[in-house]
Order: sequence, then C-alpha cells, then structure tokens
Amino acid sequence: MTRRKDFDLEAATQVLARTPGALQALLGGLQDSWTRGTEGPDTFSPFDVVGHLIDGEETDWIPRARIILARGPDPRFEPYDRFRHRTRNAGRTLGSLLAEFTQLRDANLDLLRSWHLTPAALDLTGIHPTFGRVTLRQLLAAWVVHDLGHVAQVARVMAKQYRDEVGPWVPFMPVLTDHESPRS
Amino acid sequence: MTRRKDFDLEAATQVLARTPGALQALLGGLQDSWTRGTEGPDTFSPFDVVGHLIDGEETDWIPRARIILARGPDPRFEPYDRFRHRTRNAGRTLGSLLAEFTQLRDANLDLLRSWHLTPAALDLTGIHPTFGRVTLRQLLAAWVVHDLGHVAQVARVMAKQYRDEVGPWVPFMPVLTDHESPRS
Repeated sequence: MTRRKDFDLEAATQVLARTPGALQALLGGLQDSWTRGTEGPDTFSPFDVVGHLIDGEETDWIPRARIILARGPDPRFEPYDRFRHRTRNAGRTLGSLLAEFTQLRDANLDLLRSWHLTPAALDLTGIHPTFGRVTLRQLLAAWVVHDLGHVAQVARVMAKQYRDEVGPWVPFMPVLTDHESPRS
Repeated sequence: MTRRKDFDLEAATQVLARTPGALQALLGGLQDSWTRGTEGPDTFSPFDVVGHLIDGEETDWIPRARIILARGPDPRFEPYDRFRHRTRNAGRTLGSLLAEFTQLRDANLDLLRSWHLTPAALDLTGIHPTFGRVTLRQLLAAWVVHDLGHVAQVARVMAKQYRDEVGPWVPFMPVLTDHESPRS
C-alpha cells in the first residue's frame, strides 16, 4: 500500500473546492434519464446526491465545526437528516441545485479559511451522536471523504442505468455490480 | 428498481463528452499526493486512470468500432493492453495527460457523430477476444460505463488516501472499504 496521506488543511481544501465543479462538469445539462435514475428504492439519484450535499453544507460539516470551536460544555452535534433534501428540493431543477451547492460550498470554504485553524484547534473535539468523540481534524477529513464517496456514487448510479445495455461486459465492469444492496 | 435506460446514441455521447471536463475539474492542479496515490500494488492512481483512458481512445473503443463497421470476414478485436500507459506516460505531467485525453476524446466523438449510425449499424457485431460476439451498441454502451467506472475509481482512490484520517467515520463511509482487493 502506498503510504496514505496525513491530514493537511490546504490539501483537504483543494478537494473540497473542486467538488462543485466536478459535479457541474459531470451532470450539467444531462438528460433527466441520467440524473434521476437510482440504484433502487430508497437510494439516491445524482439529483438526490446534489441535494444531500447541499444539506451537508447547511446542516452538517460547518455547523459541527462551529460546535467544536465554540468549546462549550456539551459539544454534541445535532443528528443529521439524510432525507431533508427530498421535501426541500421537490420541484427544483438540477441546474439550480448545482448552482446553490457551488455557492454554499464557496462560502463555507471562505469561512473555513478565515478561521486560520492551528494544529491545536484541529485537535479540539465534539461529540458525534452515533460514535462519540471526534476531533475537528477527523470531521474535516470526513467532509472530504464524504464528497468523494458521493462523486463515486453519482458515477456508479449513472453507470448502472446501462447495465442491461453492455451485454457480456457486465462481469468485467465492477462498477455495474458494486453495492448490489446499495448503501446510499 | 427504476427502469433502466435503453441505449441511445445521443444520451451516450452526452456522457462521453463530459468525462474529460469532469476529470479536469476533479484533478486539475491537485497536489501529487492526491493524484499519484493508489489502492495498493498493481492498482491505478488517478494519474494512471487518465493514462488508461487515453489508451482506450487510441487502441480500444473507436478502433473496435471501426473493425465492426468494416464488416470484414473476421471482425476480431485486438486484445487490449491495460498497462500500455505505464511506459508511455513515464515523465508526463497529469495536466498534459488531461489535455491529451480531452483532445483525443473530442476527435473520437466528432468521428462517431460523422458516422450517423443507424439502428441497423448498431446491431452489427465484432468478436471480443475474451467473450466473443458483441454488437456495436454494446461496445458503445460499454465505453460509457467504462468512463463512469473510472470516474468512480478516481474518487474512491482519492478518498482512501484519508482512510487513516477520518477516525470513527470509517464504517459509515463505504467508499473507504469498497474494493478491499481492488480490481483496477
């Protein structure tokens, strides 16, 4: 195994800053048949993923970082609603969601940079409702991984729309059979 | 399951046309520590993936389509070298590979459009060295899925660089544990 990366705020920010553009490039202007397809009941379409990432900007990563940095007596995070976007975005277009995600992400990264986080600040902790104490460093690394996981998901969900079309290639294209029981 | 898409040349081309821009947006200007990391020995880094996609443009999809459309007596495809890029691209920068991939893909899509393929042409067949007779429609659908699989791979390989950094989030982020034995 190549040695994995240590967390580095500049490197993390490089990825976080690229996600909106990557999704815009992948999804902008595509037919709904690509962007609204899912992997099955209760799984996310690419449209849903962008809505879920917007929820993350508004209710997850930065709000949790604020709780940690406030250093209060009970730094417990609010539970996160993975389906908030469903009612929030009914009737929206994907284009408008992509634009909104871009704007929210840019503002959140401006805020993150304005904090000038030191290594000591990155060691501060909060309490996750499911798995307990986590550092700000782990939270920010998880934000990066969460983005990349959802980019991978968008590509996988799109690929699966052609599962019946590739004929004998199916066993040679693992993306078509990954997550047979999808964990959206 | 949502009904999957039937193959449609316009829809397929929409995705094929977006892959270079998506990879450019995701990878352009990133630190090498993101773009050169792998999932382990004999697996692809994001840099390798772009080289592999270039190989596909030069030696796989369009050359195989040409063999089918030539309607010769023995429409057998050349075997595909999955590691051609390793020697070909030693010393190259990722930026130059991304530019080359964009150029090759654009030219190949211009060519594909110039063929004005009819449904009857899409039914023509060639012979794959591993799994035998396939239609042009299946080949072109596989090209789309191949792209998306490698976009998903790039995101997954990048995410794994932070596997040691997210602490207790690991079991909640399937992208970190997908393909424990990677099939690059």
